[in-house]
Amino acid sequence: MLMHSEFLDVCAVEEIAAGAAILGAGGGGDPTLGMLMTKHAMEQHGPIRLIRVEDVPDEEWIVPLSVVGAPTVTLEKIASGKEILEALHMLEQHLGMKTFAVYPGEIGGGNSMTPLHAAARAGLPVVDADLMGRAFPEIQMTSATLVGIKASPMSMADEKGNRLLLDAVDNVCTERLARAATVQMGGCSHIANYAMRGGHAKQAVIPGTISLARQIGRALKTSRLEKRDPVEALLELLRGVLLCRGKIRDVQRKTEDGFAVGEVSLAVSGSSSQFKVAFQNENLVAWLDGAVRATVPDLITIVDESTGQAILTENLKYGQRVAVLGIPCHSKWRSAEGLKLVGPRYFRYDLDYVPVEASHG
Amino acid sequence: MLMHSEFLDVCAVEEIAAGAAILGAGGGGDPTLGMLMTKHAMEQHGPIRLIRVEDVPDEEWIVPLSVVGAPTVTLEKIASGKEILEALHMLEQHLGMKTFAVYPGEIGGGNSMTPLHAAARAGLPVVDADLMGRAFPEIQMTSATLVGIKASPMSMADEKGNRLLLDAVDNVCTERLARAATVQMGGCSHIANYAMRGGHAKQAVIPGTISLARQIGRALKTSRLEKRDPVEALLELLRGVLLCRGKIRDVQRKTEDGFAVGEVSLAVSGSSSQFKVAFQNENLVAWLDGAVRATVPDLITIVDESTGQAILTENLKYGQRVAVLGIPCHSKWRSAEGLKLVGPRYFRYDLDYVPVEASHG
Repeated sequence: MLMHSEFLDVCAVEEIAAGAAILGAGGGGDPTLGMLMTKHAMEQHGPIRLIRVEDVPDEEWIVPLSVVGAPTVTLEKIASGKEILEALHMLEQHLGMKTFAVYPGEIGGGNSMTPLHAAARAGLPVVDADLMGRAFPEIQMTSATLVGIKASPMSMADEKGNRLLLDAVDNVCTERLARAATVQMGGCSHIANYAMRGGHAKQAVIPGTISLARQIGRALKTSRLEKRDPVEALLELLRGVLLCRGKIRDVQRKTEDGFAVGEVSLAVSGSSSQFKVAFQNENLVAWLDGAVRATVPDLITIVDESTGQAILTENLKYGQRVAVLGIPCHSKWRSAEGLKLVGPRYFRYDLDYVPVEASHG
Repeated sequence: MLMHSEFLDVCAVEEIAAGAAILGAGGGGDPTLGMLMTKHAMEQHGPIRLIRVEDVPDEEWIVPLSVVGAPTVTLEKIASGKEILEALHMLEQHLGMKTFAVYPGEIGGGNSMTPLHAAARAGLPVVDADLMGRAFPEIQMTSATLVGIKASPMSMADEKGNRLLLDAVDNVCTERLARAATVQMGGCSHIANYAMRGGHAKQAVIPGTISLARQIGRALKTSRLEKRDPVEALLELLRGVLLCRGKIRDVQRKTEDGFAVGEVSLAVSGSSSQFKVAFQNENLVAWLDGAVRATVPDLITIVDESTGQAILTENLKYGQRVAVLGIPCHSKWRSAEGLKLVGPRYFRYDLDYVPVEASHG
């Protein structure tokens, strides 16, 4: 079978990690550690083959791999890389199938690296796609849910050797059971779910998001080399909106029910205005002087003003000089079903969704 | 193969239910509903065959079946009987085995009926044994744990159709993960665990406890017919100690982390003394005027003074005239390992265990 594919080298993995942090919208965890682990695995096992979803044979199984939990926990509880392969093996055993390729369930943040690391170790190709086009805090928040594909059966593993297989009636039940188990696993678990055949995947995934992350990483690198404003480079590539430039004056955060929850306040540069962003793992809503400027599912990403690198919610600190970007989400999320699943009301904000580019026309 | 076995008829099931309520030590849930369901299933499928553990072939698998959760919840969330067979099927599938016989993980309370009902429906024999000789609130509290047998792999099912398979590193991890999942399943779940072969079972189970429950039920029936004091009949059969006769003056209870937790106070008959019993699903410690009179793992069972029927913690009410019995636990629990697993200190009472019959010499 002739298949369009390319090989990812360590340089590509670095670019993907930098881009994935931007697509994390503040969440999804820091990709740095996963990037180092992936590079290490590639030194031992060689480069990773990236394939297009349209090249996955209809009958073959592809499986998204993810780490679930509060990023604040995943920062301190470091994976060995064995856990995710344990989870994949358990799912294969349950379904009686062999995985053709893996891919990120969530391109945003550290979960961009989870399948790359597993793929390098297991010698599997990676599909250039994910199920979110960004990061989201809950398991049911995927493009697969939108087309009626179940997250279950789903397997979970932790670093102690605990394994769990879930077969829930719907994706919200899967999320609830998995979240409760994750808390017992110490706030972080390694999961394989949404197993689907190539034929279904073509409708269910968001294609090209690994390549998009790489483009973002490359744009940041290029802007650095060309001494161009990285914020401008990002806005241009992602058709984004500059929500604010400013300095962080306060950060509130707590870990609640397995999530990192809080808000960050900024003093807007060159004005007396106040800017505020609320987050639950990811940044959810942004306000300028109390007026909503952007909401989930559009991406609200805070970057270091001078380097353009994403600052995840757990790394926000008093005094940082930042730019806040509003990035249009994938069009799948702007449908009525999409907004029901991941719109501001799901997160208990009594707000109508307005596309970020429209409110800054 | 010639095997010693007897058949349980509906009359036997009624006796077992009454006896199991006594062995519940206040917990394990009311067996009445399970008894009615079992009798109904027997009307359709015929009597249940009871076999001795020594007659289980060494290579055959036997599986204890249980309902997990706060009795206060299981009272209101009524099982269809399908859930437990779902759980058993999931475990069989995972282990690639066929169940030879089922039995109660916990003879005390409603879980005495769980495997009888399943056995009647599935046409399986029941082993005359359990893993507690009473009721305990947590999954690792079994005689199987004492001989190093794992609760995992363990399957769980709920009435909505959610299923879960756990493979935890030890029995305490199994309990934690199962408890968290049970809370998400609405406070009650149906489980199959501690799957073991006949060869191991002979060391791991507490034999004869279904017959013991039946003897208790029969003694209550006989005392009624013979107009004998049922409390005396129970004490004689179980070599128990009368801790107090009295009237309930207060009950405190709440549902906490999936458990029914609280305490009951009694005015002792014919004296100004106060008697108190603390419970977590089961009765754990009894005090007379502040002095400890009995502790877990001995059974503290509160019965209706006139009928001798057990009153479960969730049915305790102001004004009831009761007798409180102290019943020696199985000798396995009186070892150092046994007391570490289920002694008063495990339940955060800073008390040394003193056998109930010794403290009332």
